[in-house]
Amino acid sequence: MSYFDAASAVPLHPVARQALSASLDEGWADPARLYREGRRARMLLDAAREAAAEAVGCRPDELVFTSSGTRAVHSGTAGALAGRRRVGRHLIVSAVEHSSVLHSAEVFEADGGAVTRVPVTRTGAVTLESYADALRSDTALACLQSANHEVGTEQPVAAVAELCREAGVPLLVDAAQSLGWAAVEGPWSLLAASAHKWGGPSGVGLLVVRKGVRFAPQGPLDERESGRAAGFENLPAIVAAAASLRAVRAQAAAEADRLRELTARIRARVADVVPDVEVVGDPYRRLPGIVTFSCLYVDGETLLHELDREGFSVSSGSSCTSSTLTPSHVLRAMGVLSEGNVRVSLPAGAASADVERFLDVLPVAVAAVREKLGAPLPGPAGAPEVRPAGDAPTADAGSADAGSADAADELAVDAADVLVVDALGRRCPIPVIELAKVIGDVPVGGTVRVLSDDQAARLDIPAWCEMRGQEYAGEEPADRGSAYVVRRLS
Amino acid sequence: MSYFDAASAVPLHPVARQALSASLDEGWADPARLYREGRRARMLLDAAREAAAEAVGCRPDELVFTSSGTRAVHSGTAGALAGRRRVGRHLIVSAVEHSSVLHSAEVFEADGGAVTRVPVTRTGAVTLESYADALRSDTALACLQSANHEVGTEQPVAAVAELCREAGVPLLVDAAQSLGWAAVEGPWSLLAASAHKWGGPSGVGLLVVRKGVRFAPQGPLDERESGRAAGFENLPAIVAAAASLRAVRAQAAAEADRLRELTARIRARVADVVPDVEVVGDPYRRLPGIVTFSCLYVDGETLLHELDREGFSVSSGSSCTSSTLTPSHVLRAMGVLSEGNVRVSLPAGAASADVERFLDVLPVAVAAVREKLGAPLPGPAGAPEVRPAGDAPTADAGSADAGSADAADELAVDAADVLVVDALGRRCPIPVIELAKVIGDVPVGGTVRVLSDDQAARLDIPAWCEMRGQEYAGEEPADRGSAYVVRRLS
Repeated sequence: MSYFDAASAVPLHPVARQALSASLDEGWADPARLYREGRRARMLLDAAREAAAEAVGCRPDELVFTSSGTRAVHSGTAGALAGRRRVGRHLIVSAVEHSSVLHSAEVFEADGGAVTRVPVTRTGAVTLESYADALRSDTALACLQSANHEVGTEQPVAAVAELCREAGVPLLVDAAQSLGWAAVEGPWSLLAASAHKWGGPSGVGLLVVRKGVRFAPQGPLDERESGRAAGFENLPAIVAAAASLRAVRAQAAAEADRLRELTARIRARVADVVPDVEVVGDPYRRLPGIVTFSCLYVDGETLLHELDREGFSVSSGSSCTSSTLTPSHVLRAMGVLSEGNVRVSLPAGAASADVERFLDVLPVAVAAVREKLGAPLPGPAGAPEVRPAGDAPTADAGSADAGSADAADELAVDAADVLVVDALGRRCPIPVIELAKVIGDVPVGGTVRVLSDDQAARLDIPAWCEMRGQEYAGEEPADRGSAYVVRRLS
Repeated sequence: MSYFDAASAVPLHPVARQALSASLDEGWADPARLYREGRRARMLLDAAREAAAEAVGCRPDELVFTSSGTRAVHSGTAGALAGRRRVGRHLIVSAVEHSSVLHSAEVFEADGGAVTRVPVTRTGAVTLESYADALRSDTALACLQSANHEVGTEQPVAAVAELCREAGVPLLVDAAQSLGWAAVEGPWSLLAASAHKWGGPSGVGLLVVRKGVRFAPQGPLDERESGRAAGFENLPAIVAAAASLRAVRAQAAAEADRLRELTARIRARVADVVPDVEVVGDPYRRLPGIVTFSCLYVDGETLLHELDREGFSVSSGSSCTSSTLTPSHVLRAMGVLSEGNVRVSLPAGAASADVERFLDVLPVAVAAVREKLGAPLPGPAGAPEVRPAGDAPTADAGSADAGSADAADELAVDAADVLVVDALGRRCPIPVIELAKVIGDVPVGGTVRVLSDDQAARLDIPAWCEMRGQEYAGEEPADRGSAYVVRRLS
């Protein structure tokens, strides 16, 4: 069994487990009470707060414990936005934030606030220029993750924090993915994190609000945690969270080097051993343990099942693995291929031998999925695909009859050399597979229109063109879904 | 050590501890993931949900796990109020709800909603009549606790739920204090509870929303727990919470009988062995483990410290034990004495011998606090107090000079037999002690005006009159604080 989804959750660190067990005996009482059990609980809570604050690099009275990282983000954004309501009602987020930040932004927008979503480059990072462009005189709050949870790319947080400070705008950093590795640099104002990402128990998040930051907690009043996190403190878990943060930090530098080498190996080897793959995210400015790639003509969910059967637990940003059947917003914002997407996030202690076995298993699994889907055989970049023997194209002739599901025996190419592929009702990666099968059937300079109502096509058809050296000529409205227009260049 | 504050929190039940330990190994992964660790976590979560639903008496898909009972109340009230916004913006709560309910009501009021706070009788229960009176055609939600957390009084929840059903209004029941003992009867619509009250871990609450109840979750979108509880599930703790609920329920009937006998003993004996005490709450319709009483001329915080020194951990609703220096809203709503207030809440398994020792220690502790405060010696009800030897009254002469802090050697009683006691700046129980010292100095039919800026005086002076058979003639505005007018009847 190789669990390679550390960016989602990791097993409890042994130090956390020990601390949890001890504080179940000592820390179950209400820390607000005056009797001995309460005072003991209060001492444990204070000590945990001091340890966590030291790891974050803040004052203990700036840090409160929440019930999750998500709650820390929700409370942090809401409190900061309300605290600076008089300044204005403008919020900045990057396009690749965690859903907790993006959903907070949606609530703010629904309530009349204005939101700027800063775009990212193809590697997944914001640029200082685009962040600077987003700052306005009425900006109440800016949010930026320390590093991306899906592709591992590190954001220029310290420089953006400096920009924000110059503009007098508080920056909230979602440090969920990085806090176990290091403190966040730069003059940030608020910070959120989640203990179960660093080996602490679930049920504990951190919210830090620097002194001097205007902050008005929202929701019903509650006296606990300085009024910033309602509900009885989850004390044994808090103690365990703080203890494990300290423990993982002690090993962080050495372990980061080791994991970085393993993920670099995956980045390089995947591109070698899997045909038609796009390794995404910044190759250098990235978290130690995360590597993400997308495989053309592969169904992400099926690939996950194949890997799971082989004992590898990974996750995917492909649309087929999401409840809404839309590709990951991170891959979308980066403009990279989303089909056959795999995120490998190695936990601390991941064994080199397991990584090697993964690299052995992966090409076989990918090939198996492709074969099942009848995907084109891999060809050199830029060349039309080789159609598998005996495989008849399923594209429809003509464009007027786009909605018809008839399978044509012959491909009709109209006067303007336009060939129409009807992939309506077919899910990722089928529309791209159908496109690849027929691109060789139009002359160079000719056009294929792919009709699709699958959300992933909007991302994957342009990504395919980029990978294959064909021209993506744009999207046009159609009776159902959209028509994606591709011009054959070679 | 005798921990008698079970209504606040109890140590982890052995079954919970076992379940927690096992699920730390099996249930740390994200239950939303498709790989084996995720599927295992999902199975544990589903099983916990089924067990909890069975104990509550609802369908598993009606129950979500929140991060605390407070969160369950906040989310439950907000979601139900928003879901029935079209019906109207009126909310009913009882005056003695937990602060999480009352704070939710305050937020709703601040947002333009109307709130009716249903009064309670002197025993702390709402009446059906007063609840029925509160129902309106625009009532969106009604809230009622199953039993009171400070005095143990059970509310007529089943009958109120029936009333609400007839009116087409959903009733949210805060079952935090009672769910470990039994399911809540009656056609309620929503229910909230907290695991650490029944021996589960902290960090877990329950929110139940019956099918058919209009419910619109508020706050940022989150897919977990049917969108009703944001953040990564606190799974090992959830498993432990469900396991311990089942375990405590198996013993509930027998243990309830045993604790009920112990608290009945405390109710009877405290009244015997402590002079000038008011035992509050309903003597019959009450939780098994809670008994609350208030001691005249006693400072609650000092009494708690005395009891703590003797090894008893109890809590208090006296103003001196609250951060806001106001008496408990429950005691206020009941109109009972708040000074020297003690809540004893026995945990399951509390030993009879410890209760006996408490009853030995308590009168000594109360007498010690009274002596320190120079309180009047106890006298028979209705009789003027005996002033301790050598103790000069500190009341001021005349009423014009009310603000002066001079100590008069002689008490001045003006033409209309009015004596003024200046207790400005003095905290509970001093104003009442000063009143008691001088009541014998005015003739029967004469009046004492107590000047006080202490919040507790508003509650405790009328309560003293009731206990002493004197007439409370009302409160009048004064330059600072208020003047509380007492007429001597005997």
